[in-house]
Amino acid sequence: MKTFTKNDLSKLDQRFNATFINCLSGFKSLNLIGTVSLEKSTNLAPFNSFFHLGASPPLMGFISRPTNVARHTIENIKATGFYTVNHVLEDFYLKAHQTSARYPDTISEFDACELTAEYKNSFLAPYVKESRIQIGMKFIREQLISENGVHLIIGEILEVHIPENCLNVDGFLDIEKAGSICVNGLDDYHTTTRINRLSYAKPDKWPEVIRGNS
Amino acid sequence: MKTFTKNDLSKLDQRFNATFINCLSGFKSLNLIGTVSLEKSTNLAPFNSFFHLGASPPLMGFISRPTNVARHTIENIKATGFYTVNHVLEDFYLKAHQTSARYPDTISEFDACELTAEYKNSFLAPYVKESRIQIGMKFIREQLISENGVHLIIGEILEVHIPENCLNVDGFLDIEKAGSICVNGLDDYHTTTRINRLSYAKPDKWPEVIRGNS
Repeated sequence: MKTFTKNDLSKLDQRFNATFINCLSGFKSLNLIGTVSLEKSTNLAPFNSFFHLGASPPLMGFISRPTNVARHTIENIKATGFYTVNHVLEDFYLKAHQTSARYPDTISEFDACELTAEYKNSFLAPYVKESRIQIGMKFIREQLISENGVHLIIGEILEVHIPENCLNVDGFLDIEKAGSICVNGLDDYHTTTRINRLSYAKPDKWPEVIRGNS
Repeated sequence: MKTFTKNDLSKLDQRFNATFINCLSGFKSLNLIGTVSLEKSTNLAPFNSFFHLGASPPLMGFISRPTNVARHTIENIKATGFYTVNHVLEDFYLKAHQTSARYPDTISEFDACELTAEYKNSFLAPYVKESRIQIGMKFIREQLISENGVHLIIGEILEVHIPENCLNVDGFLDIEKAGSICVNGLDDYHTTTRINRLSYAKPDKWPEVIRGNS
């Protein structure tokens, strides 16, 4: 084992440190956020910081950094109030990664990265057609994290589009069956293999394996 | 594809809804938090909501729910100011899941779930000896999410213990090589398989694969 103390961490090269610290929290979700500006320009950007905030009301949060290329995403979310969250699959992980490049303002990442904007029902923001789990979100508010100037963006789930054969009778959604992938750090992409789904833990016995019924 | 509108979601059975919404954000990290009370009782609890908040200063956040069994964890964190974050491996994922059971106050989850409390240097809180990526954290503050009464717990990384052969020369930490697993929803555990690590995205070319050197 190698140990880094606080003093060791403070002396690391800035890029080494950023790469290293980004891996410490563990595996992350990988989603593309689709937005549209008031002028009807579409935008697409990858985020690996989405997390579940609550089920009732259905809320998700993600972290926005002031310096990153996601500026248009945040501007569009605040201007229009809506955005889509789209799980990334192995089929298009390279295109998803490429949406993080700093394209000129006049270029949509949908076009530059060969992904398809899909509008559903009357939802304002574009979904990623290639994605199999698509979520329509309403912006609730942003919360400054004063320690480092990042923002927590809180949104409410307005609609969900999923493959019907990935939904179990108990509400469990098999995102592995849907092809969703995950990421480590900033750039390290992974598929998953189920170990098991386990029953609710009780003090008097070990958990049991839940057999699939999706 | 099956669609759930906001109206559909609001009519779902409460448990179905909680199970379903918990899967929508994508794959999650899986960590055990180790703490000790002022009376020297140890506590261990699983959290799947850890996320990277920033690299400089090195910060991580997680979500604490008022109703869950993690109450002792939060009480200990606030009372002592310190906690450990330990990546879960396939070897002990069942024991990790079991730490979420509602044990009586007098029982430590380390003992009940057959995991080993490990004290390193002068760090106050116990690590999980079976884990291969161990992080010592200092509590910074908690932030209420007023929409649903959960709290964001913000902490600073004070020390990190990792397998030396999982660290690349550029700071990249190969958590798959270290055996870290991930989770979907509340109870669905997965190992990972690397697709590729990709180079920093630039507008004028597609990303390249980064070959490992850990």
